[in-house]
Amino acid sequence: MKRSFTTIPGAITAAKGFLASAVFCDIQHLGTGKGSQKGKKRDLALIVSEAPAAVAGMFTTNQVCAAPVKVCVARVKKGVAQAIVVNSGNANACTGAQGLRDAQGMAAAAARQLGLPAQRVLVGSTGRIGVAMPMANVRRGIRQAAPLLGQGPEHAAQAAEAIMTSDTRAKQIALEFRVGGKPVRIGGICKGAGMIQPGMSASGARPAARPLHATMLCFLTTDAAIAAPALQAAIKEAVANSFNRITVDGDMSTNDTVLILANGLAGNPPILRSDSAFQHALNHVCLELAKMIVRDGEGVSRFVTVRVSGARTFADADAAARAVGNSSLVKTSWCGGDPNWGRILDALGYSPARVVEEKADVAYSLPGERKRLYSLKHGQPTRVPFRSLCRITAEKEFDLHIDLNLGSASALLYASDLTEAYIDFNKGDVSDPSSLGG
Amino acid sequence: MKRSFTTIPGAITAAKGFLASAVFCDIQHLGTGKGSQKGKKRDLALIVSEAPAAVAGMFTTNQVCAAPVKVCVARVKKGVAQAIVVNSGNANACTGAQGLRDAQGMAAAAARQLGLPAQRVLVGSTGRIGVAMPMANVRRGIRQAAPLLGQGPEHAAQAAEAIMTSDTRAKQIALEFRVGGKPVRIGGICKGAGMIQPGMSASGARPAARPLHATMLCFLTTDAAIAAPALQAAIKEAVANSFNRITVDGDMSTNDTVLILANGLAGNPPILRSDSAFQHALNHVCLELAKMIVRDGEGVSRFVTVRVSGARTFADADAAARAVGNSSLVKTSWCGGDPNWGRILDALGYSPARVVEEKADVAYSLPGERKRLYSLKHGQPTRVPFRSLCRITAEKEFDLHIDLNLGSASALLYASDLTEAYIDFNKGDVSDPSSLGG
Repeated sequence: MKRSFTTIPGAITAAKGFLASAVFCDIQHLGTGKGSQKGKKRDLALIVSEAPAAVAGMFTTNQVCAAPVKVCVARVKKGVAQAIVVNSGNANACTGAQGLRDAQGMAAAAARQLGLPAQRVLVGSTGRIGVAMPMANVRRGIRQAAPLLGQGPEHAAQAAEAIMTSDTRAKQIALEFRVGGKPVRIGGICKGAGMIQPGMSASGARPAARPLHATMLCFLTTDAAIAAPALQAAIKEAVANSFNRITVDGDMSTNDTVLILANGLAGNPPILRSDSAFQHALNHVCLELAKMIVRDGEGVSRFVTVRVSGARTFADADAAARAVGNSSLVKTSWCGGDPNWGRILDALGYSPARVVEEKADVAYSLPGERKRLYSLKHGQPTRVPFRSLCRITAEKEFDLHIDLNLGSASALLYASDLTEAYIDFNKGDVSDPSSLGG
Repeated sequence: MKRSFTTIPGAITAAKGFLASAVFCDIQHLGTGKGSQKGKKRDLALIVSEAPAAVAGMFTTNQVCAAPVKVCVARVKKGVAQAIVVNSGNANACTGAQGLRDAQGMAAAAARQLGLPAQRVLVGSTGRIGVAMPMANVRRGIRQAAPLLGQGPEHAAQAAEAIMTSDTRAKQIALEFRVGGKPVRIGGICKGAGMIQPGMSASGARPAARPLHATMLCFLTTDAAIAAPALQAAIKEAVANSFNRITVDGDMSTNDTVLILANGLAGNPPILRSDSAFQHALNHVCLELAKMIVRDGEGVSRFVTVRVSGARTFADADAAARAVGNSSLVKTSWCGGDPNWGRILDALGYSPARVVEEKADVAYSLPGERKRLYSLKHGQPTRVPFRSLCRITAEKEFDLHIDLNLGSASALLYASDLTEAYIDFNKGDVSDPSSLGG
């Protein structure tokens, strides 16, 4: 069912009772003057609800998991929270026991400034791995940010800016819709760019299946009244169909985190189990934010929706889509706008999915258009001219359709190309160790 | 046990009774004059034994498997062969029933020229995927190559040249050693460059474990007297420790093939089960050829030996090594000479291997040197200066040591960096479809 939503301004502060602020406190030690904010990208944000909120979250299933993720996994289980403190410039990952104390200390510092119990404050970090958090800067930033809290697009945009790392633009959205006749809002911000192939679960524990493979952070706020377990179920579904369906470089981060706070100030009849309008709105918010991450991935020049159908099982469809969407050769061919089906078929063949060469179809279409051009039918090249295929793959965005013709399961993956700009950005500059991101 | 071997000239023709020749017959339709060989890289080779030979082989486990691989899998099972016909420029993969007829036709044409039964001729192909074999050119090439067969470095070098695709240099080696007091020789040629992460098995069927993930082709000849089953066991061991331990881009090809012919003309006491001198020599030949493939991989600027130890199981050690050796972010950091252990730990964490952050050690050394510099001990950064680590990773070749400290299993992987040159080479030029390789 397609639903239309009203997009509203205000992003993370669009829902009633949510405030945000952000400052520059030099977390990456850029060596600028103490606390000078002139021309510097903000690097610490506060997101605060005026009332205690139901909370839910999804976290990286990477076995090497950052300290703030550990803190959040434990606190989200309690079901109630009221604030999030988040920084960029340092991931607080691979920082041992001190890292855990620092993540807790960061939350405690925010709690003191906000007059909240420490357990009600969640924490997020993104940036370099393996560097101790500059806690003096963090505490100064929190002290500066707390009095600046406010509502509206400007405050939301500052928070969206503060969580950016290699992102080239801020990512934010907010929707308004109705639950039980009452207007309800969901707003959010996220960041991505590199180390992007999230595979998040509620507990941070990896699923029984082989793990999927960013730092991506996403913070969501809603004024819906919803019970914490229902909120957890809703965010799980939304993430499964959005952030867990994207890849930039196939590397799953140590810090991937999605958090949602629901403070109930909309006054809707409380959602105790599920509500389809809420779910659809949340799905839409997460999907739009997830796509923004891929489109703004490091060096990305093309956005490809890989649609696998006809697989024996969902696991097969998923594995096939990820093999194609993460193949260096396929991604490089996209960079050149090349509809190279040979590399696609090769990647399908080595994927863990069951694939029969003589059955596979490969087609291209422009997003939103029904007309597909088949380059391969039942494993054989078609007579569709190469030039016609190239006209689709020359576009910045296109859909790749793979029908395995072996069953009825399907999966999709939002993927990107692999470009020289990605290499240039990530190879770092060993003469400048501060450039070497985590 | 370290053994020393005497390297001898002659490569694929170094063993008694083996002849080779190669010609240019324009398999890629470069559109040059008919059969003109002036300045053109050879693209079709014949390798022939004067006597019937025991044969063994290892083949891609990609489910999408080229026609020549299917022909070889069937014929190698018979245990006897006498010639190989191989071309570059066209992989004869994803070419359906016609492709299979063409692979058989290629072997049949060679058999006629050589006066052999068709079943005694094996066939190999590498190049573009999904394009019909230009059989008229192939047949002309075979007719031209047959009278040119001969022994010696020049003939061997021509065959090594003929199998090259994106390789920048020919890859060949030959050794002499003794079996039962008799001098025995093994020689070989191979090609690689892109689509390189072989996972070969004797039957082409994938192992029970998840598949590993090039086109690589390797042809070996020996004058050892050895029974076909012993030869198969020997090549299986040699490949497991060489070609199946390399990665350039993580993409397993549709065409990976290793073939060995043993004609017994050395007159050694026949090897019925195994012989350690033979095995060591074969291991050495395969390993040296495998390393040549990685060093000459597309765009490769650094050769990194990833050594994982302390894993619970070999499967874990292997999975950990492949996660690191195929991570876009890790490979890109190597391109910059950056000893980025954060990305390494991240890749270990999302690998299917059991990893405990607080136990993992990461160290670097120069090849052949005992001294290791630890960047990480038990999950914590050491005090080894960044500059010292960079002095190692700035080198063209270095070893990366990862100790998971969880068990006693180990694995190694010969890996490469990921460079802008790889992207530039593989993104193709859609204005020139003939540039778009398989």
